[in-house]
Amino acid sequence: MLAVKTPETAPQTVSRDVFRSAMSILAAAVNVVTTEGPDGRAGFTATAVCSVSDEPASLLVCLNRNASVYPAFRDSDYLCVNTLSADQQALSNTFGGKSPMAERFAAAQWSTDVTGSPMLDGALVNFDCRISNRVAAGSHDILICEIVGIRQQESGDGLIYFQRGYCNATPLG
Amino acid sequence: MLAVKTPETAPQTVSRDVFRSAMSILAAAVNVVTTEGPDGRAGFTATAVCSVSDEPASLLVCLNRNASVYPAFRDSDYLCVNTLSADQQALSNTFGGKSPMAERFAAAQWSTDVTGSPMLDGALVNFDCRISNRVAAGSHDILICEIVGIRQQESGDGLIYFQRGYCNATPLG
Repeated sequence: MLAVKTPETAPQTVSRDVFRSAMSILAAAVNVVTTEGPDGRAGFTATAVCSVSDEPASLLVCLNRNASVYPAFRDSDYLCVNTLSADQQALSNTFGGKSPMAERFAAAQWSTDVTGSPMLDGALVNFDCRISNRVAAGSHDILICEIVGIRQQESGDGLIYFQRGYCNATPLG
Repeated sequence: MLAVKTPETAPQTVSRDVFRSAMSILAAAVNVVTTEGPDGRAGFTATAVCSVSDEPASLLVCLNRNASVYPAFRDSDYLCVNTLSADQQALSNTFGGKSPMAERFAAAQWSTDVTGSPMLDGALVNFDCRISNRVAAGSHDILICEIVGIRQQESGDGLIYFQRGYCNATPLG
């Protein structure tokens, strides 16, 4: 058996550039995460979203506390994760950029379901959620969310971010 | 502005089948997560891995407390996230199945770096990590990990799980 080294005695730090380069090859689905905050609708593009538990059905979203949208999500108990389809690249750029919220939301059609959070029409799937826990981790908050409603398209191609570019998923033989 | 409904007064539950069907269209990279536990090496296939923060460089992994590998990760302070390349489908199946640990690890070549956790040779990227926090969420624990070492291939195609099948990422025009 291999001896376990003790990194405490020889701590290594991973630079931001090395981290970002490595993370760029961890492929991820592209989502627009939205909420209806006290000051109106807010939303941002996120790849740091993942499934947590099926009992209760839950997922998590990581959010930078320095993001302009942070206060809106801090002050809301609900959010919607809208998983983009491959033809929604432009919307990913809009919600990942600096444009004002009114402009972002004007770029698509929205509806609402259980929580009142903006639900993107034409998304591959919408997860309507109640934020059940928040955990600080470095610069980010992890928002743990219970899924209270799901709207899912019957078929469609997902938008994936990989190696700093947009991709779709092609089945392997 | 839309009125925010209060889901507390009309709670909805999302069934396991509806949850799983919806999650199957949230595309994700496939990883083998490993540790050198008190009883030897352990590892499992995971798509519930995501980037958290670049200061300090960190990621998270969700792990079912009912998984056979759970005790090994509960009793270890370290793990390695090995992000699979498109040609490592067989390894994903091996580490996602029921085979004994010795068989799983015999299916590939391994090395170690900072933490002593098994590092998969030929992975797209290896994230060598110290587990810095554990948060219970439903049936799962969220393992928040500080990345203490990264080994990255210069190029390669990632293995993606989408719509219950293996895919690779094809750049969109």
